Amino acid sequence: MRYPEPIAKLIDSFMKLPGIGPKTAVRLAFFVLEMKEEDVFEFGKALVNAKRDLTNCSICQNITDRDPCYICDDSSRDRSVICVVQDSKDVMAMEKMKEYKGLYHVLHGAISPIDGIGPEDIKVPELLKRLSDDTIQELILATDPNIEGEATAMYIARLVKPVGIKTTRIAHGLPVGGDLEYADEVTLSKALEGRREL
Amino acid sequence: MRYPEPIAKLIDSFMKLPGIGPKTAVRLAFFVLEMKEEDVFEFGKALVNAKRDLTNCSICQNITDRDPCYICDDSSRDRSVICVVQDSKDVMAMEKMKEYKGLYHVLHGAISPIDGIGPEDIKVPELLKRLSDDTIQELILATDPNIEGEATAMYIARLVKPVGIKTTRIAHGLPVGGDLEYADEVTLSKALEGRREL
Repeated sequence: MRYPEPIAKLIDSFMKLPGIGPKTAVRLAFFVLEMKEEDVFEFGKALVNAKRDLTNCSICQNITDRDPCYICDDSSRDRSVICVVQDSKDVMAMEKMKEYKGLYHVLHGAISPIDGIGPEDIKVPELLKRLSDDTIQELILATDPNIEGEATAMYIARLVKPVGIKTTRIAHGLPVGGDLEYADEVTLSKALEGRREL
Repeated sequence: MRYPEPIAKLIDSFMKLPGIGPKTAVRLAFFVLEMKEEDVFEFGKALVNAKRDLTNCSICQNITDRDPCYICDDSSRDRSVICVVQDSKDVMAMEKMKEYKGLYHVLHGAISPIDGIGPEDIKVPELLKRLSDDTIQELILATDPNIEGEATAMYIARLVKPVGIKTTRIAHGLPVGGDLEYADEVTLSKALEGRREL
């Protein structure tokens, strides 16, 4: 005995999402049956619309519903700095901070030879094309602080140096509010290495 | 700065689901953007269809896409026994066992005075109506083994006794594969109370 077809299909769809196993999928599907009809309809529409209406900005590659995106199109932003990040969620994290006023470039991934991902598979060529513009003076490499992120930052830095554009890497160190006792050795060593005079 | 409208709406929809907070909702929404277009479309359709096409069976109140449901309509099933459960997921659990061949009645809840849920708010009246039929000889009360479930079973048993239908309650005891050492006292006391001669 299986669930009736309409709910079985919904369970299957939920199971395609990351971190959702069979039991959670059943729970979510049954929850949907209890939801208000209009909310379910909104949900279905949101899914299809998000997939259909969102594209990557032709300049910074960030996801957007208009091209160029709001950030690239905002004349109040500093056009001399580009912050390079791995994905669109990173742009949101940076924007939440409300301190950075430059532009972005979203790579949509990081170089990872093990997974067969090279510079051509992420948006590195698009970044290099932007650098031909004379207005850009600094490239802030804000890729993730892991092996792939570091490799990507290193790769881009080496490519860009000959062009004469300043390239910087965001700092490694102890997270604010953290506890020195629980920091791993690599982080601690990076924090020590990056110490500054007060 | 907010996410572009289409993804913000999708995030909001995901956040309406139980156990999904803002961070998980963002993760799921971005995953949807990476999914194949047809899968997303299927998902959206599954949501709307599940809500639209599923109703409660007019006899047993189980969710179904046809009325009467497959179980109520199956002439090979034993029509003299009704197993009373709290929700449709319980029917699935019973069916997986492949041993029970009788009918079901889904209450869609349990009596809970604290939450203001009385017998009239769950499908108790519908159950009583079914009992007027002479074919029914036994009512197996398989509501959950917690306060609300016990109260519901007790309530139904008292109502049905005068009618002369046998009412039974599923057994409490140690779960198979469990460990006596880790059983709570109430379960252990119920297991002892329900002991049987070998």
